[in-house]
Amino acid sequence: MSTYFSSDFKLGILGGGQLGRMLLQECIKWDIHTSVLDPNKEAPCKNYCNHFIEGNLQNFDDVYNFGKKVDVLTIEIENVNLEALKQLEKEGIKVYPKPNTLEKITSKAEQKKFYKDHQIPTADFSIYQNKEELQKAIGDNKQPLPFIWKIAKGGYDGKGVGIIQKLEDLKNVPQGECIAEDMIPFEKELAITVARNPSGEVKTFPVVEMEFHPTANQVEYVLCPANISEEVSLKAQKVAMQVANSYQNIGLLAIEMFLTKENEILVNEVAPRPHNSGHLSIEANFVNQFEQHLRAILNLPLGDSSLKTAAVMVNLVGKEGYEGNVYYKGLEDILKLDGVTPHIYGKKETKAFRKMGHITIASKTIDRAKETAQKAKEMIQVIEAKN
Amino acid sequence: MSTYFSSDFKLGILGGGQLGRMLLQECIKWDIHTSVLDPNKEAPCKNYCNHFIEGNLQNFDDVYNFGKKVDVLTIEIENVNLEALKQLEKEGIKVYPKPNTLEKITSKAEQKKFYKDHQIPTADFSIYQNKEELQKAIGDNKQPLPFIWKIAKGGYDGKGVGIIQKLEDLKNVPQGECIAEDMIPFEKELAITVARNPSGEVKTFPVVEMEFHPTANQVEYVLCPANISEEVSLKAQKVAMQVANSYQNIGLLAIEMFLTKENEILVNEVAPRPHNSGHLSIEANFVNQFEQHLRAILNLPLGDSSLKTAAVMVNLVGKEGYEGNVYYKGLEDILKLDGVTPHIYGKKETKAFRKMGHITIASKTIDRAKETAQKAKEMIQVIEAKN
Repeated sequence: MSTYFSSDFKLGILGGGQLGRMLLQECIKWDIHTSVLDPNKEAPCKNYCNHFIEGNLQNFDDVYNFGKKVDVLTIEIENVNLEALKQLEKEGIKVYPKPNTLEKITSKAEQKKFYKDHQIPTADFSIYQNKEELQKAIGDNKQPLPFIWKIAKGGYDGKGVGIIQKLEDLKNVPQGECIAEDMIPFEKELAITVARNPSGEVKTFPVVEMEFHPTANQVEYVLCPANISEEVSLKAQKVAMQVANSYQNIGLLAIEMFLTKENEILVNEVAPRPHNSGHLSIEANFVNQFEQHLRAILNLPLGDSSLKTAAVMVNLVGKEGYEGNVYYKGLEDILKLDGVTPHIYGKKETKAFRKMGHITIASKTIDRAKETAQKAKEMIQVIEAKN
Repeated sequence: MSTYFSSDFKLGILGGGQLGRMLLQECIKWDIHTSVLDPNKEAPCKNYCNHFIEGNLQNFDDVYNFGKKVDVLTIEIENVNLEALKQLEKEGIKVYPKPNTLEKITSKAEQKKFYKDHQIPTADFSIYQNKEELQKAIGDNKQPLPFIWKIAKGGYDGKGVGIIQKLEDLKNVPQGECIAEDMIPFEKELAITVARNPSGEVKTFPVVEMEFHPTANQVEYVLCPANISEEVSLKAQKVAMQVANSYQNIGLLAIEMFLTKENEILVNEVAPRPHNSGHLSIEANFVNQFEQHLRAILNLPLGDSSLKTAAVMVNLVGKEGYEGNVYYKGLEDILKLDGVTPHIYGKKETKAFRKMGHITIASKTIDRAKETAQKAKEMIQVIEAKN
């Protein structure tokens, strides 16, 4: 008897941050038994899973021992011990995303090579094994300036990415394998999430548009529907499907793309899990990304990902210059605005640009949602509590 | 500094059933610290609050000691120790609904008297202190037959209500204070939920229509929007506001009403808490009833309760003839239908007509939602697991 609801079935989640927490909220809705592994005993998932285990996500034994006790294992963060996942898969545990897919994605250098090998449109690039090799290429005029520098492994939330205008700009970038990518004068940044289950059913979410903060290199607004033509939307969907089919990923695959000034779609990067660009689906879509991820990894029929309403998502990040116990100044005031839903991740300490929560603004029209989002953003600050 | 989010503020909930569990899901979203009191150590709320305390909801000490440790105390079930609530309120704990409002509502006899005193339209009735008094009134031809018999206190989920056609029908009804109510040949049953916060802000949810199961006397479908004229909708809203203003309730007040064949609205009964008739708001409304209850009892601005989409709610109740470890037969199949969201309450044991979960079917049109709901209802059965 195969069933997940109020049963002995056990889902394991590697990582206990906000993505895991929002996934747990769907597991509560369906009464699915959950275990979470995270190094931080105060992780956002701590109180909302059936078992919380403190452990190192990069340590073979920690991941292996955790995974042996569950039926299906998934991730909410890519940086986990791959060898343990491979071993668990060999021993019959269902691991989604599959370890060999995850391996192709955790390194941004591997991602870029993968796009090239599969004729997926992406900005031109070169890969360098270390900083010295990159410096030499610039010195030898083999690497033209300016370019986008990206660390191959371990970058997140705007860290591990920078614009290099001149040789000296490299001073402050860390060591390690890296990518030098052509700077694309793009028109917009778009994203599409694609879900795929082991039976091969595939569904895409509608295109979202991302507006970035000019200095923090973090997403400031995510909007859906995107302000693009039907033609561009179809092109973006087509590229997203090409990427999803190439990776044969199981679960969610979030695909970030550039729309160039010439109306071309270039794939920027992918993440094989629920993604910041899909948070507004909780309020705006018939099925949200977290429920869709669950459906996909449990090989359940995928849900209707179309929109119920327009929406804008605003990240709540720690304000620069504040560090310590968090206080959401103005949060009570923004509740006066129609269609505003805050999500607070339960992190006790704020610091500059740390993702502490997000707010979704749902409205019948995207213009109205955007207007309210701008108001809300001006009214709220994530700062330090004074006691 | 007054704030509820990721702070030391503590919310207490009396009762740990499905209503509490869905309220907790909103508290997780806002990172509000929660404590729950329930006699059942396997209650649906058990794993999803910060503190779960096993105790008797009717016992003064259990409720008082629990309430002393929180800042705001609310309920998800009416049948709690009122004296303890009154004492807690006297000692400065915020108790919502207020104990004196709750007192007027927990007894259905008090409810009926309240409607009469406040010129709120309701079916004619008589109150009897016990079964003998009622039997005598029938014998003396002072109580006309047939009528609706209702127990004054402790009825729930279709228990404590029955149709009395002849004197002998009284044999099987339990002892206790009761109401004999005129049978109203009604056209429809409707419900409206009204939220009110301590600052006096009031918002109503749209009218929902309830279709009852012919034998179990439980709601089979809840539909929104209701299939009624604008005129009837306005009349229902007006009566609902009259009821809410008369009770001066803080939090949610769910008001069940009859629409008579003559297009009159009669109030049937009220509940001062989230209610089965409002579950579809989780998927269908800009603010759902649980978030609205939280906003109200925390004196936050009330949210936009209007619809994002049409929806139908179907209760998942235990099938007659099955008792034991629950199995949701067909649940995986109904996920194939667009717009279907199951909610599973986490009760391990099923029994006849026990509320085990519900499914919401959201759709652009109510006709389509209803059609899908009927299909889903035929596909799913809550039965016993065979191991």
